[in-house]
Amino acid sequence: MAVGDANLAFNPVPGVRLGSMPCGIKANAVHDLVMFEFAPGSVSAAVFTKSLFAAAPVIVGKQHLNQASPRYFLINSGNANAATGEAGVADSITCCKALSQLSGTRPEEILPFSTGVIGERLPVARITDALHELLPTLAEDNWLQAAQGIMTTDTRPKIATRQVAMGDGQVTITGIAKGAGMIQPNMATLLTYIATDALISQPHLQALLDTAVNKSFNRITVDSDTSTNDSCLVTATGKSGVEIAPDSPHWQKFYDQLESLMIELAQGIIRDAEGATKFIAVQVNNGASQRDCLNIAYAIANSPLMKTALFASDANWGRIAMAIGKADVDIDISKLDVSIGDARLMTAGGRDENYNESMGAAAMAGEEVVITVGLNAGEFCETVWTSDLSHEYVRINAEYRT
Amino acid sequence: MAVGDANLAFNPVPGVRLGSMPCGIKANAVHDLVMFEFAPGSVSAAVFTKSLFAAAPVIVGKQHLNQASPRYFLINSGNANAATGEAGVADSITCCKALSQLSGTRPEEILPFSTGVIGERLPVARITDALHELLPTLAEDNWLQAAQGIMTTDTRPKIATRQVAMGDGQVTITGIAKGAGMIQPNMATLLTYIATDALISQPHLQALLDTAVNKSFNRITVDSDTSTNDSCLVTATGKSGVEIAPDSPHWQKFYDQLESLMIELAQGIIRDAEGATKFIAVQVNNGASQRDCLNIAYAIANSPLMKTALFASDANWGRIAMAIGKADVDIDISKLDVSIGDARLMTAGGRDENYNESMGAAAMAGEEVVITVGLNAGEFCETVWTSDLSHEYVRINAEYRT
Repeated sequence: MAVGDANLAFNPVPGVRLGSMPCGIKANAVHDLVMFEFAPGSVSAAVFTKSLFAAAPVIVGKQHLNQASPRYFLINSGNANAATGEAGVADSITCCKALSQLSGTRPEEILPFSTGVIGERLPVARITDALHELLPTLAEDNWLQAAQGIMTTDTRPKIATRQVAMGDGQVTITGIAKGAGMIQPNMATLLTYIATDALISQPHLQALLDTAVNKSFNRITVDSDTSTNDSCLVTATGKSGVEIAPDSPHWQKFYDQLESLMIELAQGIIRDAEGATKFIAVQVNNGASQRDCLNIAYAIANSPLMKTALFASDANWGRIAMAIGKADVDIDISKLDVSIGDARLMTAGGRDENYNESMGAAAMAGEEVVITVGLNAGEFCETVWTSDLSHEYVRINAEYRT
Repeated sequence: MAVGDANLAFNPVPGVRLGSMPCGIKANAVHDLVMFEFAPGSVSAAVFTKSLFAAAPVIVGKQHLNQASPRYFLINSGNANAATGEAGVADSITCCKALSQLSGTRPEEILPFSTGVIGERLPVARITDALHELLPTLAEDNWLQAAQGIMTTDTRPKIATRQVAMGDGQVTITGIAKGAGMIQPNMATLLTYIATDALISQPHLQALLDTAVNKSFNRITVDSDTSTNDSCLVTATGKSGVEIAPDSPHWQKFYDQLESLMIELAQGIIRDAEGATKFIAVQVNNGASQRDCLNIAYAIANSPLMKTALFASDANWGRIAMAIGKADVDIDISKLDVSIGDARLMTAGGRDENYNESMGAAAMAGEEVVITVGLNAGEFCETVWTSDLSHEYVRINAEYRT
């Protein structure tokens, strides 16, 4: 189940090569080991989960990022190496050391990533034994294989790409993401890897990532559950020669492309959310603060009663009122407007006098639903994207061991 | 679907009469109109929902409580009279006035309550037309009929009773509750009515209620959704002659009985929660603060991934770690212990070395599951009760219009 069609087009990024293969962590010889290689001189920006149980690879990855610019990412699916304590940290380091020996780099130039079952030890030997076969698979056009290799309960790969002229040159940005459940990222998302051939310093790249993540991956929720392994990285190889800096003419243009690509990937996760039959945007407009807007948007987006009503295509405005009512905000409900699509359900805090059930049914009929809440109290606006709560969601999560 | 058997025994409370009948709000001639009558001199304590969209009867009831001691409660099921604006408030007042004329009381001596669909106007005439038939049904032993008459998606009535000797006398406490979904009460619960023949002042009764509600109804969650109509009332008729005051020998004993009855009713709601196949207690012990304990307990109890794992009887300790990890608390995870029933899953923040899957499976096999988290950081302990997330939950809430 997934909402809409996925666009799988992409452009390779000069200076980036990818490899993937099955190493036996997942069953049926599915690809479960993925590698990125970046040209010397590349810089990486990153955001990671704020979970107290941040996984071992997150702990190791942060340390390595403080010591060096990454040359390789080593990613496995099928096992999250999370809640595995000191032993898990040692396991991640062992994998990095094995790759550093084979590739002639230092261990701190390698970032490890894992996704899958939480609480099980990583099968380290399967990974290290596979590395000599993985390295020869590296190629510039392996993005789609890599997107497939990092999947867990995803039903399809997520990939997005941008290519724009900047001055005399051209900049490419391409990214992949995975994630379908345990999704309410907090300053990051599940696994997202973006690369560009722009020439940009690490602090500038980090600043753009920090801004864009709050417009994209930090605005999605499947189930209100935050993963232990959330990681989002952007790496710039500089190969295009197009310089991006705050005082350059391309700064805003580059940011806009990066943000739009990250929104596309984030929305791609929601469109493929566990059991999703609908893609829902919750827009809260004209609030007195960002906090008011976000609290109300997440109260609606995470309400199980709202999500089951969406699954049933029921324009249940009583449940929207309930969800707004429980949000921890101080608003004047007599100023509140609520619409689903073009249908105005509520005006000035009460049922709109022109509203009828058939308007609501029509607004809910499609796969894409926009719920708009107007607070009429200020200038802040926020949008959160979410999925519905279906029988399939329960089946997946009752049967699958994360 | 409900967990365990319900105990439907009760003792009438001297000074309290109840009536119920069908008035046509719900289909199939089911009882949907319920009335309590209290003897002159009775006092009532109350807590109500903190939802911004507090329903019309909540608004009217609070006003009336400020003006007089209630002589009657008038309760309908099938329609919540919530998010109905000024018109809804007028509807509730109309019902109170009609009953005041028939019963020879003042309107402010009547408290109105409604539960059911949100956002629809109350069918006032059906209620006011029925009152002359409802009054003659009043009797001391109608508690079970009243418990049935206030049900919505409940599959069975909830009733609890206590009778204890105090000095030369005897005190009775009996209560009923309804609620199965839209349950994460905030300072109150869905509809709960408790009566006692103890002789106690209104301020003292309110103080006991405020304390007990934080040990019972404010410690349950089905779906993290807070109702617009939550109301919990305790009324004391004084008919036993047993005086309850802070300096009397019976003060603590009376409180203990009241708290235990309220916990029984609150747990009864969870045992009959929408789609419930399991009754789960989440105990968080030895925290540095009440807030730490409650945030962790609710993070576990409200996690859809935890609730689907419970439905599947999967001792998924990775999901427990995930839920603790996302709670907004500052704890040392290296001190953390986690058990399900007798099975120790986690010690000092890592998988317990003696744990194996068959221990976990055994601990999850029954209908009643206790998840214990030890923070080993202080003296605070909190318990929250919840249900699992089943296919039946999705079916009920996709098909039923609340």
